[in-house]
Amino acid sequence: MASFEEKEMAKYLHPADMAEILRGLSPEKRKAFFDSLNPEVGAMVLRELDPISESELLAELDNREISEILDEMPSDDAADIVADLSKEKADQVLQLMEEEESTDVKKLLKYKEDTAGGIMTTEFVALNQELNIEEALQLLRKRIEPGPIHYIYVVDDAQKLLGVLLIKKLIASGPDIKLKEIMNRDIINVHTDVDQEEVARIVSKYDLLAIPVVDHQDRLVGIVTVDDVIDVIEEEDSEDIFRMAGTDDEELSKKSIFRIAQIRLPWLAITLLGGLISCGLLKTFQFTLEKVLALVFFVPVIMGMGGNIGIQSSTIVVRGLATGNINLSRLGKVLLKEVRIGAIMGFACGVVVGTIAYFLEKGLTLGIVVGISLFIAITVAATMGALVPLIFKRLKIDPAIASGPFVTTSNDITGLIIYFILANWLFRIFG
Amino acid sequence: MASFEEKEMAKYLHPADMAEILRGLSPEKRKAFFDSLNPEVGAMVLRELDPISESELLAELDNREISEILDEMPSDDAADIVADLSKEKADQVLQLMEEEESTDVKKLLKYKEDTAGGIMTTEFVALNQELNIEEALQLLRKRIEPGPIHYIYVVDDAQKLLGVLLIKKLIASGPDIKLKEIMNRDIINVHTDVDQEEVARIVSKYDLLAIPVVDHQDRLVGIVTVDDVIDVIEEEDSEDIFRMAGTDDEELSKKSIFRIAQIRLPWLAITLLGGLISCGLLKTFQFTLEKVLALVFFVPVIMGMGGNIGIQSSTIVVRGLATGNINLSRLGKVLLKEVRIGAIMGFACGVVVGTIAYFLEKGLTLGIVVGISLFIAITVAATMGALVPLIFKRLKIDPAIASGPFVTTSNDITGLIIYFILANWLFRIFG
Repeated sequence: MASFEEKEMAKYLHPADMAEILRGLSPEKRKAFFDSLNPEVGAMVLRELDPISESELLAELDNREISEILDEMPSDDAADIVADLSKEKADQVLQLMEEEESTDVKKLLKYKEDTAGGIMTTEFVALNQELNIEEALQLLRKRIEPGPIHYIYVVDDAQKLLGVLLIKKLIASGPDIKLKEIMNRDIINVHTDVDQEEVARIVSKYDLLAIPVVDHQDRLVGIVTVDDVIDVIEEEDSEDIFRMAGTDDEELSKKSIFRIAQIRLPWLAITLLGGLISCGLLKTFQFTLEKVLALVFFVPVIMGMGGNIGIQSSTIVVRGLATGNINLSRLGKVLLKEVRIGAIMGFACGVVVGTIAYFLEKGLTLGIVVGISLFIAITVAATMGALVPLIFKRLKIDPAIASGPFVTTSNDITGLIIYFILANWLFRIFG
Repeated sequence: MASFEEKEMAKYLHPADMAEILRGLSPEKRKAFFDSLNPEVGAMVLRELDPISESELLAELDNREISEILDEMPSDDAADIVADLSKEKADQVLQLMEEEESTDVKKLLKYKEDTAGGIMTTEFVALNQELNIEEALQLLRKRIEPGPIHYIYVVDDAQKLLGVLLIKKLIASGPDIKLKEIMNRDIINVHTDVDQEEVARIVSKYDLLAIPVVDHQDRLVGIVTVDDVIDVIEEEDSEDIFRMAGTDDEELSKKSIFRIAQIRLPWLAITLLGGLISCGLLKTFQFTLEKVLALVFFVPVIMGMGGNIGIQSSTIVVRGLATGNINLSRLGKVLLKEVRIGAIMGFACGVVVGTIAYFLEKGLTLGIVVGISLFIAITVAATMGALVPLIFKRLKIDPAIASGPFVTTSNDITGLIIYFILANWLFRIFG
């Protein structure tokens, strides 16, 4: 669609595209390319970069260059970058920045990173309720900030948030009407200390383009825009996915493979510990195993199935809690459903594998032991898979942590215990 | 913030909140509650309902009631609901709907559900390029559709998309200026048949509030708004998460636990098959096991660790591909990184578990077999974990499928093979 008659050629390459090019360059070329941009464009490109390339690039720039770029950025993005600098460097950069910009950034730095305050921008439109349409339009015409106006917020003299207006309503109203007469008072807002996940949930639930953020005196101090909400959703989903897999999204910002291994190893330690407990179990039941070695053959099936079914159930619950599909008031119902699904799958698998075991080893007792164990182990695994994340949620621990190595490992062990106890008992009776 | 002086009391309960209440009611009460709403409010509430409650509610309503509600909905939401009805019922409902509305819905039904055409709405603002600001504002004042105007699109007489304008630009420009003089020609759009995941990626990358959708003659036929993009992102993330866990997000729309078990069982079949292959392996190496039963004790550790590490690597790759953090041009680099991280973790775990095996059984050979097997198995598992999703992506199969039971099971088997071959070999040499 691009026409070359436009005056500003630079507009044709979107900052997001430039960031992608930048990412593919070597560190030296990256610096050279970045130096050729004016601070305004540089600011837009830097906002689009991934964390690793961003920190590499910032390391190459001196404090004055950084401060010039930050002056051109929305305050929330600037604050994010300052937060990643060393204390000393951050102070120097803030010194060099324009007074107004650095004041905004300093204010934002006080909020915790994962809260409404930490992700809000201070660039928003707030107009006094006593203004009339004509005056409001005059003020809007003077606004120089780029980008769309999501909503017009209406405040009183103390900056207290009273209502919200769509810009199209201004256009449709007569010039003398006061904002307070036409504003929508039914406004959805959040406090600065609300968790970013909750902010995203509200914006998504009510289909908002932005949500106003107020302090404890109900004064409007910022807005969280929908593009930042999308980033939060993707970030939170990544965090859940990584934790379910037994690692952490923190590894995305690490370049060193030793650092990444350090992040993943503690999760493996859970599996390792579980493996050693299983090892101990096998040793405890050594006598039974020596008598019926064929019991050993089905250990992988019992462990694998239990682990897998546990992951299915726990994933359903973890994701349901994250999307709001499952709410804590209906715990019993959710749990019962997973138990029943587990029982159906346990029955199906028990019959199939029990029959295979019988024919493979010509042992009726073995077939019965394998079949019944699998049925019980799978039902228990589904129950545990659903129960553990729900308990974690109640204890205010991230349920995603429950749904990884933790569930698999505990189901491996439970499965083995059921298998061996049943084997011991039935082989003693039937031989 | 709510003030009771407002005239329209109904506004105080947001449709999303009403939907939540509705969801908690029994089917009969739900119908009674819904009947008490006027079609306009009913339409808003229905849009917010989860798929199961929605289909239950629709089953209770007659065709006329449904058509009245659909008339009040944005065309994209109405089309989604019609698509879920039986062919016969859909035809009857479309017959009963207002001409204009049903024409829009019929048009939308032609597009595939997961494409830009399938998720776009036909409610958008498109103005002719020859209009001046004064005329444009006149037209906007007449617009009755609720909700914000995301962007003003500028078209020619043939409805061909030429440019885009922010509503604030209209306010700031003189009355006689023509739209074509001030519009931004550098417009990002998608064709109707672009996959919804790609649409979401573009909207998120360029921080848009909406993206215009054009047909093959570049005519503007709809827009995808950012709130629908959020739904797509959550839907696609859920799909990935469910598939990684060995199930499918299809189960969210199923009520019967037998249906859900049916969705999950095929994934378990993979694990089951893997378990039976492991079973065969143990049988094949029966002779070695009978000689050194202690080898059995470490089977759970070897299997558990390999499976777990494979999931870590594959999850990193699957999520990286989904978010665009990993792109297909840097495959070698990604793979090498995972292999090296795997080797580090394999070394650490091999030393620890090998030492434990040595002390536990007072067997030097056993310690060496366990340690080296674990090192190799973990390195291979990390490699496979990263490689399989990349291959799947190349073959245009959803990589998330690769990262569940598939990777775990193949790593279980590979781990066992490495373990037994090494054991056979070393015990033959050292005894």
